[in-house]
Amino acid sequence: MTTEYHHSHEHESTQAVINRLSRAIGHLESVKKMVEDGKDCSEVLIQIAAVKSAVNNIGKIILQDHIKHCVADAVTTGDNKVLNDLSVAIDKFMK
Amino acid sequence: MTTEYHHSHEHESTQAVINRLSRAIGHLESVKKMVEDGKDCSEVLIQIAAVKSAVNNIGKIILQDHIKHCVADAVTTGDNKVLNDLSVAIDKFMK
Repeated sequence: MTTEYHHSHEHESTQAVINRLSRAIGHLESVKKMVEDGKDCSEVLIQIAAVKSAVNNIGKIILQDHIKHCVADAVTTGDNKVLNDLSVAIDKFMK
Repeated sequence: MTTEYHHSHEHESTQAVINRLSRAIGHLESVKKMVEDGKDCSEVLIQIAAVKSAVNNIGKIILQDHIKHCVADAVTTGDNKVLNDLSVAIDKFMK
């Protein structure tokens, strides 16, 4: 039951995260093209800001999904390593 | 003289920015691979944080270079549009 639930969660958010990562990669490619073409600095900055925001949102989705599923499981099973790893990840992500 | 200086600045920072953008794209591709391979959420988050930081630094380089060169020129020539565009870009970038 737990495995099945975990399985369906993985598929659901994994695909959304992969799609967002693909879009962010495409967006960065277009920013690179803008810089190569000598586009206006202000325009490039606005697109860089959009990519930064997109990457941040991807991190948030992964974090929320992780808390909802993996961490909830870890609390039930008393797996401290998962909580410690999460703490390290949040510390790096919030910087 | 101004054109020559501007030209050399463009080449100098443009190449550094393009190299950093290429590395960030490669980094995001590897994060996508991690997610596809079902790697640990905490590990993925740490890499996402690294990409976010890299994208932020690219923005900073563009911004600093823009201020040092284009904006300095705009102040000399009294070009308000450049300053307004910069203000909009900073507003979006700092969010």
